Amino acid sequence: MTPDYQAILQTIYAEVRPLLSQGRVASYIPQLSTIDPQQFGMAIYCLDGTTYAIGDAEKKFSLQSITKLFALALAFSREGDSIWARVGREPSGNPFNSLVQIEYEKGKPRNPFINAGALVISDILSSRFVQSDIAVLQFARMISGQANVDFDPAVAESERATAHRNYAIAHLMKDFGNLHNPVDLVIDSYCRQCSITMTCTELAQAGSFLAQHGTIPWNDTSILDPSSAKRLNALMLTCGTYDAAGDFAYRVGLPAKSGVGGGILALVPGELAVAVWSPGLDATGNSLAGTYALERFTTLTARSIF
Amino acid sequence: MTPDYQAILQTIYAEVRPLLSQGRVASYIPQLSTIDPQQFGMAIYCLDGTTYAIGDAEKKFSLQSITKLFALALAFSREGDSIWARVGREPSGNPFNSLVQIEYEKGKPRNPFINAGALVISDILSSRFVQSDIAVLQFARMISGQANVDFDPAVAESERATAHRNYAIAHLMKDFGNLHNPVDLVIDSYCRQCSITMTCTELAQAGSFLAQHGTIPWNDTSILDPSSAKRLNALMLTCGTYDAAGDFAYRVGLPAKSGVGGGILALVPGELAVAVWSPGLDATGNSLAGTYALERFTTLTARSIF
Amino acid sequence: MTPDYQAILQTIYAEVRPLLSQGRVASYIPQLSTIDPQQFGMAIYCLDGTTYAIGDAEKKFSLQSITKLFALALAFSREGDSIWARVGREPSGNPFNSLVQIEYEKGKPRNPFINAGALVISDILSSRFVQSDIAVLQFARMISGQANVDFDPAVAESERATAHRNYAIAHLMKDFGNLHNPVDLVIDSYCRQCSITMTCTELAQAGSFLAQHGTIPWNDTSILDPSSAKRLNALMLTCGTYDAAGDFAYRVGLPAKSGVGGGILALVPGELAVAVWSPGLDATGNSLAGTYALERFTTLTARSIF
Amino acid sequence: MTPDYQAILQTIYAEVRPLLSQGRVASYIPQLSTIDPQQFGMAIYCLDGTTYAIGDAEKKFSLQSITKLFALALAFSREGDSIWARVGREPSGNPFNSLVQIEYEKGKPRNPFINAGALVISDILSSRFVQSDIAVLQFARMISGQANVDFDPAVAESERATAHRNYAIAHLMKDFGNLHNPVDLVIDSYCRQCSITMTCTELAQAGSFLAQHGTIPWNDTSILDPSSAKRLNALMLTCGTYDAAGDFAYRVGLPAKSGVGGGILALVPGELAVAVWSPGLDATGNSLAGTYALERFTTLTARSIF
Repeated sequence: MTPDYQAILQTIYAEVRPLLSQGRVASYIPQLSTIDPQQFGMAIYCLDGTTYAIGDAEKKFSLQSITKLFALALAFSREGDSIWARVGREPSGNPFNSLVQIEYEKGKPRNPFINAGALVISDILSSRFVQSDIAVLQFARMISGQANVDFDPAVAESERATAHRNYAIAHLMKDFGNLHNPVDLVIDSYCRQCSITMTCTELAQAGSFLAQHGTIPWNDTSILDPSSAKRLNALMLTCGTYDAAGDFAYRVGLPAKSGVGGGILALVPGELAVAVWSPGLDATGNSLAGTYALERFTTLTARSIF
Repeated sequence: MTPDYQAILQTIYAEVRPLLSQGRVASYIPQLSTIDPQQFGMAIYCLDGTTYAIGDAEKKFSLQSITKLFALALAFSREGDSIWARVGREPSGNPFNSLVQIEYEKGKPRNPFINAGALVISDILSSRFVQSDIAVLQFARMISGQANVDFDPAVAESERATAHRNYAIAHLMKDFGNLHNPVDLVIDSYCRQCSITMTCTELAQAGSFLAQHGTIPWNDTSILDPSSAKRLNALMLTCGTYDAAGDFAYRVGLPAKSGVGGGILALVPGELAVAVWSPGLDATGNSLAGTYALERFTTLTARSIF
Repeated sequence: MTPDYQAILQTIYAEVRPLLSQGRVASYIPQLSTIDPQQFGMAIYCLDGTTYAIGDAEKKFSLQSITKLFALALAFSREGDSIWARVGREPSGNPFNSLVQIEYEKGKPRNPFINAGALVISDILSSRFVQSDIAVLQFARMISGQANVDFDPAVAESERATAHRNYAIAHLMKDFGNLHNPVDLVIDSYCRQCSITMTCTELAQAGSFLAQHGTIPWNDTSILDPSSAKRLNALMLTCGTYDAAGDFAYRVGLPAKSGVGGGILALVPGELAVAVWSPGLDATGNSLAGTYALERFTTLTARSIF
Repeated sequence: MTPDYQAILQTIYAEVRPLLSQGRVASYIPQLSTIDPQQFGMAIYCLDGTTYAIGDAEKKFSLQSITKLFALALAFSREGDSIWARVGREPSGNPFNSLVQIEYEKGKPRNPFINAGALVISDILSSRFVQSDIAVLQFARMISGQANVDFDPAVAESERATAHRNYAIAHLMKDFGNLHNPVDLVIDSYCRQCSITMTCTELAQAGSFLAQHGTIPWNDTSILDPSSAKRLNALMLTCGTYDAAGDFAYRVGLPAKSGVGGGILALVPGELAVAVWSPGLDATGNSLAGTYALERFTTLTARSIF
């Protein structure tokens, strides 16, 4: 029995309103720090093509770390399991931008969703494509079916100008031999990739191939084989929401990837992709209202994978 | 469409044979170190009561850390969310017996499946029951429907005599005020709890209430409400297989809890529980053949949660 | 030219008065937490037998970690360089009671002045003497020339009852094979050893053999050969004042060993030993007024080793 | 009684010969990795102007980290105690190029002799001087009395080209706000400063002002007041020889600063400065033969500060 998704979105929309003022907008990227936190959008893309949306679901926002998922899917689709020689598949147990584990584990990041791991993925893509950021952008356009998806150059520049931590991570991995391209090139590509913007409805559509076992639902293009798609979903569940993945799995129970722009993409395998956006973050860097919205979504729809 | 589980078990049984000599039997508990590694058993308990079994599925083995799941379920059913004030829900990113994070995070273990977290759960049970180990045993008998389930006193004693690391962890948490009962009492209860033995068929049956959203399938006894059961499953997925939870989720894609005795319990929510046992461990402390068997199981049955 | 030590002590005594209320008495040993912080004593023992004293220099106080120096000197005099196979000679860079480095460095403490290292020394003495605490006490009587030096049983018992952190350290080292005697025996001996009390005048006299290159000045008894004595002095300088050894060397410039009872013993090699006591501690666990008094002492006497 | 220093140098020279093949030349700076390890030089500069030398004492070698001492002395002489707000005075307990402590302690290096601390000193000098590397060079010329002291541009370039770890450290500190100048500028200056070359006789002379309480012995120029000079000596003793400072103090017992070029400068306060050079390093990064030579020097001259 299909739930009444539109009614559920309305219920959630009403419930999250008091939370919108509680989160804190990401401050470390100047360009993002000025965003009005009182915004909230949510969109569902069912695999049959039906869509539901509410609130600010048609406003563009900065995907940030959600693009790590796109970059990973692209790299995995091209390079296969060889990528795991350079990046692990374990939760890190440390903040997303920590250098401690990189040093202790000799330059190999724990997983592709912490910054160090995403930089390695960028490096892998930079070895394969002339411009890895363009490759990720084109991939994002393909999986979302939206030719208008684009970078936000001001955000990319703002991030690059303050990317000292990422530079530190990249140089440390370079020192360990786990970065093959020049640091500046990798950081530039990474910052541009992170600046891609989408709306909630676009993002839900972009995630739908992972809900449909690797195949884009509206045109049957195979991006990943079913086994690989399931494996990316598993990675999202264990590592997709920074150092709060355990808590997120406990509360929401869906594979998901979040970004400091306030967006979260979550999947109900075999059924739908759901995207939520609200710029105010909790202490772990995930959208405060967005996480709550997804928790309510799985409760109201009984759609946890567990 | 229900897969032909018996045929699948036979396929797996044939495939794992070459792996049985590759794992290493746990050596840190002397009583466990003498076990013949060439054993392998696997059993399925479907929620309709149908069972399938192969190999050494009727041999008793030491559950060890799998009992952490039972103790957690018991504590959670009695104390509810208050337990999370004393133990977290995040993957640790460290070895299961590390003291580093306990010290850095002031005595609060990352999750209930590392040793430190399990000791806190034992402590919580020791505050509620006259003998927490007996309480866990009775709980294990109830959820498995097997009155003959029991401790293995020789293993309990062997573990207690060499439990210096666990004593260190317990004293450190005591120093931080996160252990309310005497260290000796908690360690004793914990070692006895860990020594509980079951067969694969018993263990699969014992896990079935978690596959059926918290209710024992054969007698409709509610152990946990559905939401709580799903949450325990989520915890198993993110934290249930030591410091290899990410890799296990990637390869197997099911909530699972392993033990150094070589057993693993895994769940297909809404369908079945599956138990596997083979004493040879991989480098992460999980049954080598058992993990492979479950990876093949989800592939052959297409039963990943992702 | 010999300075006018008595005049210098008077100057210091006047200067430290405003500091006496700024330190905090050690609270983790209940029996020590009740001591009046407004006390201050200081005593000098010159190698020619001349002594100087001021303030509460004749009041007994709990030596605590200063006894680690006596235990080390005793163990070193009996076992020689073989002790360095089990304990290092490097500053730890971590709090005195940390378990992190013990775990990372597989049970070998950084130096004999952090708790872990002192427990290893106690263990070494426990393997050689029927009662290592009695052996340390007799050694303390010999080097101080005071037959009345004794334990404070109430402090020993108070420390033992709250020694969870030390139990954790000892069990962790036991797990790594770096503790040969039973944990309880080592902790008991260690807590009793730490409870030895002396006055400032007694402590200055007790330290004089280290100022005189290993030989007790008043009876020419050789405790350590000159090379070994110098080496212990070097260890005091680099590791003797907890995690503030660098700062202490920078400010005071003398080999020293402090204790949480508020005492500090410092040496001017070839000239004198000086003991100071004031129970109020700074954030690093060293006597606040005592450290300042020694800083002024080296300034006023121009007696830094640098 | 003055020892017969020339005879002692000859004894040492004979003794170290078998050790020359045991050390390993630093490999991480390509330009340094090709040096013949079978070289050994040693020179003494007594405060009365007498000098002694043996072996390859007149060959130029790369000072590397020994220049950290010059940079620190220069910065301390100009900025005074304000530098300690940005860099600590404690042994680190970690490898000289570790990022772990920088991250845990929010960008403040433990001491000015680990790379992170030296980069902060370079940054401080870069804020004061047009070119901090030139300032350090001129300072080195002044304290050595040698106008011909210069950079080795090939070594500087070689180090800069492989300085990924130092870039990582600098960017991490920049992220924490503890680097005020651009990373590239600081790294460039630092690499050039490190490339300064001297002979043993020049280096011994350059260190003499620290042996003479801050005043250049041959022209009475005051570089530091006596108290500050003693304090730098104390820092050398506790932090001057990488993560082996405790062991070095134990064995040698003199304030010293080493470099991966194989040089070590040590001081006997009030008497002399001694420089030794041999390119083969031990596991801690200090000259293997050089450390042994200094250990023998203090034994044969009885010149330990302890």
